[in-house]
Amino acid sequence: MDLSGIYPALTTPFDADGNFSAQDFKHNLHRYNQTDLAGYVVLGSTGESVLLSDKEMEAILVTAKEAAAPGKRLLAGTGAESTAETIARTKRAASLGYQAALVKTPYYYKPVYKPEVYLTHYRAVADASPIPVLLYSVPQFTGVTLETPEILALSEHPNIIGMKDSSGSVQRTVEVLAGVNGKFQMLTGAASVVVPSLAAGASGAILALASAFPEKCVALYQLYRQKMYDQARELQGKLALASKRVVSEAGIPGVKFVMDLRGYRGGNPRAPMLPLSEHAKAAITKVTASLEPAAAVTG
Amino acid sequence: MDLSGIYPALTTPFDADGNFSAQDFKHNLHRYNQTDLAGYVVLGSTGESVLLSDKEMEAILVTAKEAAAPGKRLLAGTGAESTAETIARTKRAASLGYQAALVKTPYYYKPVYKPEVYLTHYRAVADASPIPVLLYSVPQFTGVTLETPEILALSEHPNIIGMKDSSGSVQRTVEVLAGVNGKFQMLTGAASVVVPSLAAGASGAILALASAFPEKCVALYQLYRQKMYDQARELQGKLALASKRVVSEAGIPGVKFVMDLRGYRGGNPRAPMLPLSEHAKAAITKVTASLEPAAAVTG
Amino acid sequence: MDLSGIYPALTTPFDADGNFSAQDFKHNLHRYNQTDLAGYVVLGSTGESVLLSDKEMEAILVTAKEAAAPGKRLLAGTGAESTAETIARTKRAASLGYQAALVKTPYYYKPVYKPEVYLTHYRAVADASPIPVLLYSVPQFTGVTLETPEILALSEHPNIIGMKDSSGSVQRTVEVLAGVNGKFQMLTGAASVVVPSLAAGASGAILALASAFPEKCVALYQLYRQKMYDQARELQGKLALASKRVVSEAGIPGVKFVMDLRGYRGGNPRAPMLPLSEHAKAAITKVTASLEPAAAVTG
Amino acid sequence: MDLSGIYPALTTPFDADGNFSAQDFKHNLHRYNQTDLAGYVVLGSTGESVLLSDKEMEAILVTAKEAAAPGKRLLAGTGAESTAETIARTKRAASLGYQAALVKTPYYYKPVYKPEVYLTHYRAVADASPIPVLLYSVPQFTGVTLETPEILALSEHPNIIGMKDSSGSVQRTVEVLAGVNGKFQMLTGAASVVVPSLAAGASGAILALASAFPEKCVALYQLYRQKMYDQARELQGKLALASKRVVSEAGIPGVKFVMDLRGYRGGNPRAPMLPLSEHAKAAITKVTASLEPAAAVTG
Repeated sequence: MDLSGIYPALTTPFDADGNFSAQDFKHNLHRYNQTDLAGYVVLGSTGESVLLSDKEMEAILVTAKEAAAPGKRLLAGTGAESTAETIARTKRAASLGYQAALVKTPYYYKPVYKPEVYLTHYRAVADASPIPVLLYSVPQFTGVTLETPEILALSEHPNIIGMKDSSGSVQRTVEVLAGVNGKFQMLTGAASVVVPSLAAGASGAILALASAFPEKCVALYQLYRQKMYDQARELQGKLALASKRVVSEAGIPGVKFVMDLRGYRGGNPRAPMLPLSEHAKAAITKVTASLEPAAAVTG
Repeated sequence: MDLSGIYPALTTPFDADGNFSAQDFKHNLHRYNQTDLAGYVVLGSTGESVLLSDKEMEAILVTAKEAAAPGKRLLAGTGAESTAETIARTKRAASLGYQAALVKTPYYYKPVYKPEVYLTHYRAVADASPIPVLLYSVPQFTGVTLETPEILALSEHPNIIGMKDSSGSVQRTVEVLAGVNGKFQMLTGAASVVVPSLAAGASGAILALASAFPEKCVALYQLYRQKMYDQARELQGKLALASKRVVSEAGIPGVKFVMDLRGYRGGNPRAPMLPLSEHAKAAITKVTASLEPAAAVTG
Repeated sequence: MDLSGIYPALTTPFDADGNFSAQDFKHNLHRYNQTDLAGYVVLGSTGESVLLSDKEMEAILVTAKEAAAPGKRLLAGTGAESTAETIARTKRAASLGYQAALVKTPYYYKPVYKPEVYLTHYRAVADASPIPVLLYSVPQFTGVTLETPEILALSEHPNIIGMKDSSGSVQRTVEVLAGVNGKFQMLTGAASVVVPSLAAGASGAILALASAFPEKCVALYQLYRQKMYDQARELQGKLALASKRVVSEAGIPGVKFVMDLRGYRGGNPRAPMLPLSEHAKAAITKVTASLEPAAAVTG
Repeated sequence: MDLSGIYPALTTPFDADGNFSAQDFKHNLHRYNQTDLAGYVVLGSTGESVLLSDKEMEAILVTAKEAAAPGKRLLAGTGAESTAETIARTKRAASLGYQAALVKTPYYYKPVYKPEVYLTHYRAVADASPIPVLLYSVPQFTGVTLETPEILALSEHPNIIGMKDSSGSVQRTVEVLAGVNGKFQMLTGAASVVVPSLAAGASGAILALASAFPEKCVALYQLYRQKMYDQARELQGKLALASKRVVSEAGIPGVKFVMDLRGYRGGNPRAPMLPLSEHAKAAITKVTASLEPAAAVTG
């Protein structure tokens, strides 16, 4: 399974009552379907998965599967704190037609989550999963980092095919790809280092920013693949600045606001996250305006 | 509501199939009922709450309420990532007869959890809760710390009556108690600093260690209250060393193992946590043996 | 050697040209001599020691020795990054009549400063030193923490008699005092936890705040020793709030400004530290005013 | 001034008595002179500068200037904690013929080193310096990070021409180069991300690893510049693994040991650093052996 390309980490739109809006979610997917995005990540961190009920997660998985165009690869975020729950979610995603599972590290009891815990956990999930598994390390949210020795050990499992690394550490990508045998694929989760990661051998990226700027993120990837390095670097710089303001600093409320600006259905985040202040909205509007020609404000 | 005294953070025993064992849970509570523990904390971090299903959480709340002796205060851990889910859990605990709710900080989207997020979240929960609310900051698991300015602001809410601080920062206790008006009560979650916290004005402690050594933890509290400071300090030293090995380093698997040693129903933790290695068991057995006279190995 | 009591970490006054002012330094010491301070720490972190030339350090050591009243214990900060330089400074302080050396951890090459490095370093210094040595851990500046196992190992050296711990971790004090054999003495460097540290068995405190508020810091110690716990706790709370604003947040520029307010010779810090802004001065003036009766603004 | 290329961060060899060995230092430089290294960094972190006396630093600067081949650019590490001392060192390096100064961040009083402190410090140094200044951020040693907004502000100073970033954050390089106007040059200090940094627009690298493997580090740079990306990536992977073991984990003792293995004069580090254990030597010998063909063990 070739994971190369750009995937948006899909957001979850809520209606006026705060419930999941399947209609808005489909609206977004139908527009994304018209781009060269490689596929979709459903129920990732950007999808507010930790704020959703089991029932809502089921509805989102079903809706995305229905709305995604046939050629788009479908990855489901299935990581829970408990190994058993992670396996249950992974099997459910597989049965709904998802092609791979993105399994974030457990993280709550971090003082006792020694490397052996991660090895045992991921092997149990990969053994039980009907579909390929990707490791997922996102230290800015979890406070834990999947280190290179564990990644290399896990890369030998036949059902673990790659990793999403949201740490922004290009060094990790270099180290892992230097150490693995064979086909293990790295995807970066940091829009600020897509080009450096590709230069290090990464296969692509899973980006919150791609929910708001899918074409720009795809263009970045394609410029690099077409060896147009100067243009790639220039666009990388612009996207890094936008990503810092929108994704790193403003978070999901920021991503959703920019989606609204660009004709997608972003909307408000779920509490405890707060909508952006007017001040933050103005700052973000300014930053993102610089990303596109005056006449091309719609996606 | 006077919170003073020692509370164990109850563990969750599982049966041979890995399911919640109400029988073992009651066994523990019946023994705790015979001590001078002030009450019980149900579904705290030590209770593996983040590894439990909604159904299991309900069963545990019901069982603890049934098994607890009448005089024991009952505190329910009700904090979830989402504000709405936290409120729902808090209302359910209240309806089951719990006297207060212990609400840990949301923590996943920590880059955007600015102080305003915590103020809004806790006020919403406290407004909606039929029972008093305690703030709960546990940075070793969550990676976030509730800071003094937010605590002071929240202490003014009439339905927020205190805080469990598991950071081990006695400075926080000093600062908060110097800054609050009136009756806000601090409970430490760190067995290593019970005496210093009491000296700083804390009302008591909620301790994982008290699940394995309830009498020792109660004795520590009583020695201090009876102004037997030298004996209190000596016992504090011993409990600090035991707590470091058992709670901080070995975590829930360590606490459960010592419970087994002392005639309680500890058992295995749920995956991804792993049972202790034989080596770790031997080390812990040695440490805890030093806590009690040779003839008194049962609680 | 009994270290009990309160020591100010002396500041270094500079004249209008930015040179060390022996005159101002003596002015401060002459006033401190009239208090019940146990002694003085010369060339500590608060003394801007890392910003001084060798010649300046020599002048400060000589001046403090001359100006200190006979009964005051004299401790010299002698820790340098290199072991050899630390030994040289320690010998020099001893030859000038200092009674003990306060040796902060080396810290620059922290990735390779494993426990064995600290054990070897401190043993070499203690072996070579003509005067007793105190360990000094100050993670807020150095980024490294001396951990309990190393402290306990070093406490067995006959010439290592105690430790200044500026981490604010009362847990460390509890652990160390529970683990040492015999006479090892702990001094806290955190004004916010003097009472809890004394309750944990500490011998006293070395405080930047005592350079500005020597009587208040001494009073705190004496109230505790006289078993006036309620009054001690009340004063502890006030000093904790002042220390947070003045020492933790404003740093040496803050301490020096409050010294100026109270009739000592504080003055400006050396660059790269910047003098306080007018805004910060106003805030600090307000905080510290609350510490004393209206009529008693001079020390 | 074009900084492009690879620079070794020179080590400081000591003789049997622990004194600086000018002879050994020249031996190394004479060999380096025969490579395509762009120049030398003298008195950097790798040079154990924080463990040297003023007199030793002077001797090292003089010796390097004498021994360096004419075409090699000479950069002097001149950062001290104090602004005045930094300026004095910078002027001295300039007077000795050094072409640029590498000025690491002050770091000891980090709680009060707000952005304004760094702006004021660096501007004062750059104003006073007769030679161009490079910022130097090395958080693994200092515990502080120069952030993008400060870097961008400082990049506007006419005498600040670039930065060495040893954090390994390729994101920083992307952000800075996207934000600066004109000619500001980034050099990475992390051997693990040379290729990704070049892909992000960096001009080159200053590497401890280049003291032991100058040809390999130069080859990496040249492969990239010659657009031989696959070979560059492959060599990058090998050097990343070697750098992790030798530089990140074993530190200066590791770098010096590998220098010894390869015919340079490495020798022992100065205390408190300890020489490598036999176990560590064996592990490193194995790692570095994999870097070169069996017959080519001399540099």
